[in-house]
Amino acid sequence: MVGGSVPVFDEIVLSTALMNQVVSFDDVSGTLVCQAGCVLEELSRLVEERDFIMPLDLGAKGSCHIGGNVATNAGGLRFLRYGSLHGNVLGLEVVLADGTVLNCLTSLRKDNTGYDLKQLFIGSEGTLGVITAVSILCPPKPKAVSVAFLGCPSFAEVLRTFRTCKGSLGEILSAFEFMDATCMQLVGRHLHLACPVQESPFYVLIETSGSHAGHDAEKLGSFLEHALASGLVTDGTLATDQRRIKMLWALRERITEALGLDGYVYKYDLSLPVERLYDLVTALRARLGARAKHVVGYGHLGDGNLHLNVTAEAFSPSLLAALEPHVYEWTAGQQGSVSAEHGVGFKKRDVLGYSKPPAALQLMGQLKALLDPKGILNPYKTLPSRA
Amino acid sequence: MVGGSVPVFDEIVLSTALMNQVVSFDDVSGTLVCQAGCVLEELSRLVEERDFIMPLDLGAKGSCHIGGNVATNAGGLRFLRYGSLHGNVLGLEVVLADGTVLNCLTSLRKDNTGYDLKQLFIGSEGTLGVITAVSILCPPKPKAVSVAFLGCPSFAEVLRTFRTCKGSLGEILSAFEFMDATCMQLVGRHLHLACPVQESPFYVLIETSGSHAGHDAEKLGSFLEHALASGLVTDGTLATDQRRIKMLWALRERITEALGLDGYVYKYDLSLPVERLYDLVTALRARLGARAKHVVGYGHLGDGNLHLNVTAEAFSPSLLAALEPHVYEWTAGQQGSVSAEHGVGFKKRDVLGYSKPPAALQLMGQLKALLDPKGILNPYKTLPSRA
Repeated sequence: MVGGSVPVFDEIVLSTALMNQVVSFDDVSGTLVCQAGCVLEELSRLVEERDFIMPLDLGAKGSCHIGGNVATNAGGLRFLRYGSLHGNVLGLEVVLADGTVLNCLTSLRKDNTGYDLKQLFIGSEGTLGVITAVSILCPPKPKAVSVAFLGCPSFAEVLRTFRTCKGSLGEILSAFEFMDATCMQLVGRHLHLACPVQESPFYVLIETSGSHAGHDAEKLGSFLEHALASGLVTDGTLATDQRRIKMLWALRERITEALGLDGYVYKYDLSLPVERLYDLVTALRARLGARAKHVVGYGHLGDGNLHLNVTAEAFSPSLLAALEPHVYEWTAGQQGSVSAEHGVGFKKRDVLGYSKPPAALQLMGQLKALLDPKGILNPYKTLPSRA
Repeated sequence: MVGGSVPVFDEIVLSTALMNQVVSFDDVSGTLVCQAGCVLEELSRLVEERDFIMPLDLGAKGSCHIGGNVATNAGGLRFLRYGSLHGNVLGLEVVLADGTVLNCLTSLRKDNTGYDLKQLFIGSEGTLGVITAVSILCPPKPKAVSVAFLGCPSFAEVLRTFRTCKGSLGEILSAFEFMDATCMQLVGRHLHLACPVQESPFYVLIETSGSHAGHDAEKLGSFLEHALASGLVTDGTLATDQRRIKMLWALRERITEALGLDGYVYKYDLSLPVERLYDLVTALRARLGARAKHVVGYGHLGDGNLHLNVTAEAFSPSLLAALEPHVYEWTAGQQGSVSAEHGVGFKKRDVLGYSKPPAALQLMGQLKALLDPKGILNPYKTLPSRA
């Protein structure tokens, strides 16, 4: 999406795929130590056998490496509940530009011995050092997981549903995702997935994960009863078995795939104040008119993260010009982020200024110069090209 | 404890006490933005009125500033549940050594626009910049809080109690603290606090915080039943009203005060593998013999954080020589941290090498030189004096 790992000019590609050994797993604390090339899904399987889960989950889990996840500060589907990798990564081993091995691979939950150096490398996309091993805290595996898929009459009701469910579900809420009617039409048309509820302008997927199935069902039941009775949602379905849970999640997770089958896709990954999250989608539909095939909004509403996508028959410079810098300016006007979870890479490096002030960009440049004076680590990425 | 904020030679003291304004609080997301001089307890009160809580709580809450909490990466009593400030702080405004105002005061949960610069300043004790404002994520206020205070026959049972309760209490467990019998004797002798359960070699304080009082009570009840039946604990008491909860917490929170009344105190704040957490206390008792008045161990067991304290009639160089570097060497032998949550300051700067390799200390020095070339920010602190 942003081309953070794609070579563009004269780069040398470095793969950590063979560094795929698990070093240790502690059953009491849930701390996993492994090499950077371990595939996320394989790590998930390993820790789940021991009644833990990885603190992150994302669509690309079958192929992505944990080292890459950390280097890009991957967000994903469990962020709402378990938070960011800046909190979950306990330690890193990093090879610096001069070949020094920086061993900060501690497994301690608390360590205030000086600067927390590992933080520098989380989300720096390999531009400050190469992550070679990771120590990460895994939460206990929930004993019960449920998914509710709901239809909402408007975005205002999506927001009210979110507030209500935060109150009712409390500590068991583990995901709050939304998608608009166009997303549902596209997964229907291109992937033949059926909408499991009555057609609605918006859909919400709520996941709960807890330690007591009976208690969780009671909380979810009373929330749904209230949501239906008060008109926040017009229709809903509930899944507690894994097969149906997967089926409901597929509606949300496969939107990207459906968009890819719809035409050329212009993609934006924005953080916005949750109340204004959908305004940009509506405004863009009006702005682009017939030039766009579809303008859709979906994403991790619980984290204030909108995935805004525009499809067209083919790439067109005039459509791009109608989108950019407009989308970035609009986002900056809301003090939003022009890259919520997908990073900067090659494509977004010159729009950083919409979300970061000059002093921050200058400090980024100074850190790059300090840690990689010859510019050999993932060149042409993350930092503004004019810096 | 480490003298991070104490002037020692020719420093100028900079107070942020007058920068005590709350900038904004968002009722939907729970994001608080405030100036650095706000007192933690006042912020707690403010967000609790709106049904949120601060993600950190500590004994010094009545006087400590949020800016100082962030600068020292304060841990405290809610760490087990809500995690570190590296995860909870969303944004910072920092004044750099050259007077530049670095505005990273975003309120977004997700923002992957380049390096996460704020992380550099969390826990750097004011040596890289002066934090002037903080944006922090507040969790929803739990609807029900309970505290169980239990007596355990040995440290092995403390550990087994911890494992069992992680499984039974799951997402509602919010604190797991322990103290040994000597701690209880000292709070009894010096503060006249009565032990609420039968005398035991170890005591455990378990706190739950959840969104449904009935469900929480059922979880806690079935855990306690199992713990008593299987001999993990020999006696226990349960509190659900605020007055008794405070009384039970006081037994744990006032240990420091009781130690201060017992004589001169040698204090260590260590992170250790939880299985080995108490071994050092036992070994030190044998090593020090009659030279020490009391050797005690207590702390945040759930986070692997031991507070090891030794009291004596007065300071003695020979007792200090028996303690240091022995305590640090022992900790390093367990890959522990010589400063879990209290930082480095003036007193610990020359023991960093026990927990950080030379390459890490070198990078710390380089970052200090980059951000504070004239060494004007909290000089003589955090970095090794020989660097």
